[in-house]
Amino acid sequence: MEYYQLNQSNLIDYLQSIPEAQQRFSSFDDLDVQEITDGNMNYAFVVINKHNSDQAVFVKQAPPYIKVLGTEWPLTRQRMTAEINALNYQSRVCPEMVPEVYYQSEAMSVLIMQNLSKHDILRTELIQGQYLPRLAEDLSTFLAETLFYSSDFALSSADKKAMVSKSSNQDMCKITEEFVFTYAFEHHEMNDYNPALSRSVIDSIQKDPSVRAQVAQMKYIFMNKPEALLHGDLHTGSVMVNEQQTFVIDPEFSFAGPMGFDIGALIANLYLSYFSHAHKSSVESVNYCHWLLQTIDDLWYKFEGKFLSLWAEHELTTQTGFMGKDLTGDSHSTFRQLFLQQVFSDALGFAACKMIRRILGVAKVADFMQFEDQHLRAKLETQALSMATSILVNRQTYTYIAEVNKLAEEISSV
Amino acid sequence: MEYYQLNQSNLIDYLQSIPEAQQRFSSFDDLDVQEITDGNMNYAFVVINKHNSDQAVFVKQAPPYIKVLGTEWPLTRQRMTAEINALNYQSRVCPEMVPEVYYQSEAMSVLIMQNLSKHDILRTELIQGQYLPRLAEDLSTFLAETLFYSSDFALSSADKKAMVSKSSNQDMCKITEEFVFTYAFEHHEMNDYNPALSRSVIDSIQKDPSVRAQVAQMKYIFMNKPEALLHGDLHTGSVMVNEQQTFVIDPEFSFAGPMGFDIGALIANLYLSYFSHAHKSSVESVNYCHWLLQTIDDLWYKFEGKFLSLWAEHELTTQTGFMGKDLTGDSHSTFRQLFLQQVFSDALGFAACKMIRRILGVAKVADFMQFEDQHLRAKLETQALSMATSILVNRQTYTYIAEVNKLAEEISSV
Repeated sequence: MEYYQLNQSNLIDYLQSIPEAQQRFSSFDDLDVQEITDGNMNYAFVVINKHNSDQAVFVKQAPPYIKVLGTEWPLTRQRMTAEINALNYQSRVCPEMVPEVYYQSEAMSVLIMQNLSKHDILRTELIQGQYLPRLAEDLSTFLAETLFYSSDFALSSADKKAMVSKSSNQDMCKITEEFVFTYAFEHHEMNDYNPALSRSVIDSIQKDPSVRAQVAQMKYIFMNKPEALLHGDLHTGSVMVNEQQTFVIDPEFSFAGPMGFDIGALIANLYLSYFSHAHKSSVESVNYCHWLLQTIDDLWYKFEGKFLSLWAEHELTTQTGFMGKDLTGDSHSTFRQLFLQQVFSDALGFAACKMIRRILGVAKVADFMQFEDQHLRAKLETQALSMATSILVNRQTYTYIAEVNKLAEEISSV
Repeated sequence: MEYYQLNQSNLIDYLQSIPEAQQRFSSFDDLDVQEITDGNMNYAFVVINKHNSDQAVFVKQAPPYIKVLGTEWPLTRQRMTAEINALNYQSRVCPEMVPEVYYQSEAMSVLIMQNLSKHDILRTELIQGQYLPRLAEDLSTFLAETLFYSSDFALSSADKKAMVSKSSNQDMCKITEEFVFTYAFEHHEMNDYNPALSRSVIDSIQKDPSVRAQVAQMKYIFMNKPEALLHGDLHTGSVMVNEQQTFVIDPEFSFAGPMGFDIGALIANLYLSYFSHAHKSSVESVNYCHWLLQTIDDLWYKFEGKFLSLWAEHELTTQTGFMGKDLTGDSHSTFRQLFLQQVFSDALGFAACKMIRRILGVAKVADFMQFEDQHLRAKLETQALSMATSILVNRQTYTYIAEVNKLAEEISSV
């Protein structure tokens, strides 16, 4: 089928032409089509049977341009091919944590999938101070399973290389390279600074040679470390939750990159959430901040534990090993520890870049933007920037996430 | 043209069918075809006009198997596509240092190129104690130019990714992963130990958890760092020299990998040459050892200097920069120093793996094998293994190549 753009008028006819979509509805006579307008890149629709809201699908289509900017901002539809590729992979290794895909078409750049009507965006839940008891457990599972099974520890040399080459997502990588690792750190016209944020704080990032050098290192690692198939944009807006379930959505930035990038994205956004709560003195806020830090701690340790289990289990089952045979003593544990220490240090470096770009760059987060008081916001931004600078520059000196949590507490208590 | 195998009988007819080959000879009536039998992977022939030896071509063809092992050892012909790709690239950025290519065919897996009749293999020259005054100068140029111009510092994000994907060389990478980073470090049936080499020395490599863990790290970096288009097998047998010229040949292992791998391969083989001379007490040998260490020192510093010059020049000419704009103070130099320090540490780690595998693995080097006395050989092997272990495990602690040279001198003087 040749590409054409779906819209509210032609969507039902399109769905009717697709057997996998037909199966979802007892009748096509009375469907409601809602366009979801909050995505920037792509068109999205929810189609519901007016007489039975359990009959619903979520439809996503990538146009050959950036949706919110219009046809004058072309962007290849490769991002939907990458999203389809990622969803196929994630639903294979971690099916309980991604929406079920009913139908996919690279030609039409379309995905038809499960409508998550009983779940909310994680970022919104965090802003509202909701406790999510399964969060660390589920997200650590997602990270461990998706990162392990696409790594050189699980795939043969040939399969790994085929995965890397199939997962190319050039345009979206370029967006990350520019918006996460470049523009926010220079005087770029797209940057958007809180007027109450002092120039000296901005300069302490943009004009500090060691910060600029370390950011360049993180950018280089982002571009030169295809160790696993990443989600590629795993902030708290890419997670949907309720008390029972966690879903990871929107892997349109997916590509083969450094494991620490996905982990760092999550950690960064959890720390931004932390600073957005830590300035409040209520018992509720203090408790919620504790929960947030505990979640960050759990997220890392559970990830580490699960990744190591998958690794050991895989080598036992397949009787093969990345390190070769005849290992004595603590050869295995020495390498695994070195490896995870490197992932940890990468994660901190990426978390730092992500925090900074959400403050100095063009794309903001609601966790901070909810505060209309520019001076309050500037205080939180200054704290987050201070934390980011420290974990960026010192990322190789941290051994435990608890040390990073302690830094967050110290900075927020000043 | 469909693939068929060239041999001494059909080669002249084949050459006559190719205009680029025709041009090389005033007549096809009296050509001499010599098969070059010392390559393992591929067929190679020199075709010379008996009446005018200046009229000559070198013909190389990759069969769909490993030549020396025969058709029962299949190997895809992708290696010739990779060699063609690498030669095209190298002759664009560094034309004076690779043989001129007259004709290339991916379909036939054939290269027809300049016959280097006035040059000898570097390894042979080193064994004979020949001084090569241009060696460090030329090889540092080759490394700086090939590594810089295929890196993210010279290419656009899109061009770099296209280069990486075009340079895939899956089978040959697998050979390196196994023979350089795995088999030599375990009890592998293909390993070939000098009977006079003590078991405790072998165990000090194979059974030391920290060595095994660091080797696994180097293997992982080899597989997960596509930072530049490498030669991929840059030992002293892949270089042809005379006093005036240096040529780099045989890039059939070429792929997008870590810069340190090419640099490390050269350094490793120069240190092996060093140990093969350092046990002799003659003035000639002492002087030659000095020259070898000076060459290693020059190689690194000249590489570093040229790489930095190319980088600065490129940014000045294109008015673009990897780090972005508005850099103050020593931002540039801080990043560049961090970057080159990382390349240096990678190079030492790779050099170590290469030295070890030439002693414990199946593929030996003539620098050591020239000695029929197994005990003498074991002494040199033990020295080289001791050096390799140190630079592998401590690779991040060295700042200057002079420190590594000092280690070589200390070890060889015991």
